[in-house]
Amino acid sequence: MIEFIYPLRVYIEDTDYSGIVYHANYLKYFERARSEWAEQSGLGIEWQQAQGVYLIVRHALIDYLKPAQLHQQVEVVTQIVEFRKASLIYDQYLRSKDLPDIILCRGEFKIACVDQNFKPCAIPKFFIETLDGEQA
Amino acid sequence: MIEFIYPLRVYIEDTDYSGIVYHANYLKYFERARSEWAEQSGLGIEWQQAQGVYLIVRHALIDYLKPAQLHQQVEVVTQIVEFRKASLIYDQYLRSKDLPDIILCRGEFKIACVDQNFKPCAIPKFFIETLDGEQA
Amino acid sequence: MIEFIYPLRVYIEDTDYSGIVYHANYLKYFERARSEWAEQSGLGIEWQQAQGVYLIVRHALIDYLKPAQLHQQVEVVTQIVEFRKASLIYDQYLRSKDLPDIILCRGEFKIACVDQNFKPCAIPKFFIETLDGEQA
Amino acid sequence: MIEFIYPLRVYIEDTDYSGIVYHANYLKYFERARSEWAEQSGLGIEWQQAQGVYLIVRHALIDYLKPAQLHQQVEVVTQIVEFRKASLIYDQYLRSKDLPDIILCRGEFKIACVDQNFKPCAIPKFFIETLDGEQA
Repeated sequence: MIEFIYPLRVYIEDTDYSGIVYHANYLKYFERARSEWAEQSGLGIEWQQAQGVYLIVRHALIDYLKPAQLHQQVEVVTQIVEFRKASLIYDQYLRSKDLPDIILCRGEFKIACVDQNFKPCAIPKFFIETLDGEQA
Repeated sequence: MIEFIYPLRVYIEDTDYSGIVYHANYLKYFERARSEWAEQSGLGIEWQQAQGVYLIVRHALIDYLKPAQLHQQVEVVTQIVEFRKASLIYDQYLRSKDLPDIILCRGEFKIACVDQNFKPCAIPKFFIETLDGEQA
Repeated sequence: MIEFIYPLRVYIEDTDYSGIVYHANYLKYFERARSEWAEQSGLGIEWQQAQGVYLIVRHALIDYLKPAQLHQQVEVVTQIVEFRKASLIYDQYLRSKDLPDIILCRGEFKIACVDQNFKPCAIPKFFIETLDGEQA
Repeated sequence: MIEFIYPLRVYIEDTDYSGIVYHANYLKYFERARSEWAEQSGLGIEWQQAQGVYLIVRHALIDYLKPAQLHQQVEVVTQIVEFRKASLIYDQYLRSKDLPDIILCRGEFKIACVDQNFKPCAIPKFFIETLDGEQA
């Protein structure tokens, strides 16, 4: 399976009084990576709005392994590990850019496709074909 | 003029690596106070959506005087100092709850009324009457 | 077991373009509740700093059940379901204030006690006694 | 004077219920740009911590001109317009990447140098020389 790599740097806004990244902010990093992947695949927000769908998080599981430091350069590595009719399972982790063997945080996210009234709906075929095609 | 007092506590999410509140987060405190005042006056989000308007920030001026500490109990003090046709000027400050003479941060916000397309529009009469009435 | 109830309102800062609360921000609500409980039990940040410890999140599991709406009044309900030597398991959920049977989001958090170098250390006895005492 | 250009994309975390960027989040963009410039000049967080200083915001003035849209690619343009003994004035603006003539938001920030006790102190000479040197 193809991995999508998204680089970023930790900024002051991400840290808390303990000097490291505030736990909720790792979820933002993971979401940026999923959004960037969609954008670069032509499945970004304009396409989603044309389809009348939102991709929302239904379930998240996060393991905090090693704190990311202020101004550290890191990368989010993303895979889609399961394609369902109305949802996707993403497996993602954050690693140090300089020491890519060191995993800082790992997250598993179930993303559901919903319509404008937040009712579940099928993931548009083109979305699956495109991201599955990338994995072919 | 009547002041609206909004109490809150500083939480971990608000701090950064320096141990005090991250500068952008004071703007959230000020906004919570403006929103709470509107809600408690019957001018909250449901009313705004029924009117088809957003109240957005056009201009902000913030003086950071003394850092707010983690878990400190503080209060936002809010006044509307100018009512215009399509905008309002709010004068707000954050003070320590225990030492109310100590001002931690001061902000002046110009809030504009816009329609669903973000075009300026008149502030609904009832909004001005209600908040002006409170000041009568 | 005793439950700690923490009330809050959803503000604009918490929402995203879809009109509901951004998924990462529920973790902030849960953390505010854990912090507030510690503060009100005399185990707040001053006590933690005197002990030289941080309480950090090691593992989080979040179920997003029903979106919280802008300006909705909600409550976080918190229980500690497991006391270990160097960690605690919190079970928390967010419910509507007006319709307390409706659970919006549920989270399970493993909180570890670490020293100033982020090495695991025993949870100070007084912390466990105090929160266990509350549950006696 | 040399301008430092910092590119970024608007993500979901940055938006609010009105569909555009939440007003406090522009301050994060401006701060990322100042931090990135410092890092790339060898004046980043490690250097600051070795010097025992924080660079904190004392005063901010922000004009919100045109909303930034979800997933829009934008750039922060940064200049230091005044070097004082213990503070700096930054002039920054956010523009569309595709239409660089369109300024979305403008900010002026007074940044003060403080020691570990948040007392004002002189900006380290090397900081001024380096960033002034870049402007020579």
